[in-house]
Amino acid sequence: MKNLEEIKGVLMDIDGTVFRGNHLIKGAKEVIEELRTNGKKILFFSNRGNISRRMATDKLMKAGISVEKEEIILSSYVAAQFLRTNYPTKSAWVLGEIGLIEELEEAEVQIAKKPTEADLLVVSLHEHLTYADLNDAFKAVRAGARIIATNSDKSFPAETGEAIDVGGILGAIESATNRRADVVVGKPSHFMVDEAMKQLRLEPEKCVIIGDSLGSDMAMGELFGFTTALVLTGGTNREQAESYSGRLDFILPSIASLCNTDLKEEM
Amino acid sequence: MKNLEEIKGVLMDIDGTVFRGNHLIKGAKEVIEELRTNGKKILFFSNRGNISRRMATDKLMKAGISVEKEEIILSSYVAAQFLRTNYPTKSAWVLGEIGLIEELEEAEVQIAKKPTEADLLVVSLHEHLTYADLNDAFKAVRAGARIIATNSDKSFPAETGEAIDVGGILGAIESATNRRADVVVGKPSHFMVDEAMKQLRLEPEKCVIIGDSLGSDMAMGELFGFTTALVLTGGTNREQAESYSGRLDFILPSIASLCNTDLKEEM
Repeated sequence: MKNLEEIKGVLMDIDGTVFRGNHLIKGAKEVIEELRTNGKKILFFSNRGNISRRMATDKLMKAGISVEKEEIILSSYVAAQFLRTNYPTKSAWVLGEIGLIEELEEAEVQIAKKPTEADLLVVSLHEHLTYADLNDAFKAVRAGARIIATNSDKSFPAETGEAIDVGGILGAIESATNRRADVVVGKPSHFMVDEAMKQLRLEPEKCVIIGDSLGSDMAMGELFGFTTALVLTGGTNREQAESYSGRLDFILPSIASLCNTDLKEEM
Repeated sequence: MKNLEEIKGVLMDIDGTVFRGNHLIKGAKEVIEELRTNGKKILFFSNRGNISRRMATDKLMKAGISVEKEEIILSSYVAAQFLRTNYPTKSAWVLGEIGLIEELEEAEVQIAKKPTEADLLVVSLHEHLTYADLNDAFKAVRAGARIIATNSDKSFPAETGEAIDVGGILGAIESATNRRADVVVGKPSHFMVDEAMKQLRLEPEKCVIIGDSLGSDMAMGELFGFTTALVLTGGTNREQAESYSGRLDFILPSIASLCNTDLKEEM
């Protein structure tokens, strides 16, 4: 599946692919419009666990990209669905931000009143984290809470360059407690793919995943049989792409090349 | 060496042994006075890397324990000495607090102006840490800085119970960068013992180390041939002590038992 015309669905990473920090990547809006004009289904598909689908919708809409909440799959949302399904009677302590809490509350996940009373610790990106937050999470796990992480990316592309991501925050808790996360929800896991496929209702082989990360976007694409397209506007440069041992169907300078180029020439 | 009378020097852990948080442990002051009356040399000996010897002196003096700065060995001080000796022309970025910076400046270690310009990252306990601090440290290591940690304890005994320690903060950086610390200065390393022995000028077999940690105090004692005395006023309870596979010469309910008990009966 190397021809865009045969593709029916696009799983589109957000950070480093559509945006870099808060800055819309040149040509992203036009490509999205063109894909839709050509009848492609688009799903925005991000490992971001600190924002809710509502917040992601607002960000895309403000950038001029029209989108419904149901066209967005975030690790915050998928984590909330995972907890609702698997731990309906359990309570969670959150090492994360308001966007994650919003998704947990929408999924009716019970939030613990104290760290030491929690059955589960949900860890996500927390850009306003303090020592006290780390310490609360530490106490929750020491008291027996199991660790669920929205994702385990080591860095994400912020406006000022690569910034430390959940992989670091989770590493703090794992190192101090000698406990590993029971579940990491985000890409490249099947949890994200399952939720995406519920929305898209297409076979993986009819879909392309476009993203900037080798370890999450491209690895997931290979694992689940999607066509893969790496963009170089995020956390991966051409040198890293060319030395990657996994499958990469396309390497694109940016998302803007997705429609304008004969993809075969990009191989 | 199981008899206190044969002991000439005491390496005395601070947190969990003399203090619990800011609270002086009952009988600590009196035991210290009695040891000194009996001609024992005392060295306060702590893995705390976020305070300076000046700050530790103030804390002990305020609690009524007279002490000179030279009678205190902290991992902040030992880390500063390590950098002065081994990296005299290199600059360091600090993920830590003012006490560490004070020791580094006293040892004339150059502090980098930007994380990305640092040759070394010095990691310590940072009870006011924010996401931005973690991110700066991450950037330093991503740009090539080697990691030096004051210690790697997973927790320390705070007033409100065990709190997350450098092991967690260091774990965040190590996990996000895939780099391990080059050097961990604190107990049970030889760096701490070397500095202590410079001050005490005694053979290890003439000294007892008293502390609350199996992994740092007791492990170090065994490794370097000290008599070891575990107190149960900190991070270790009797059950953990009794299932410990290493050598423990004495298990004491608290430091108060050090003089009043025939130590042999405590075995």
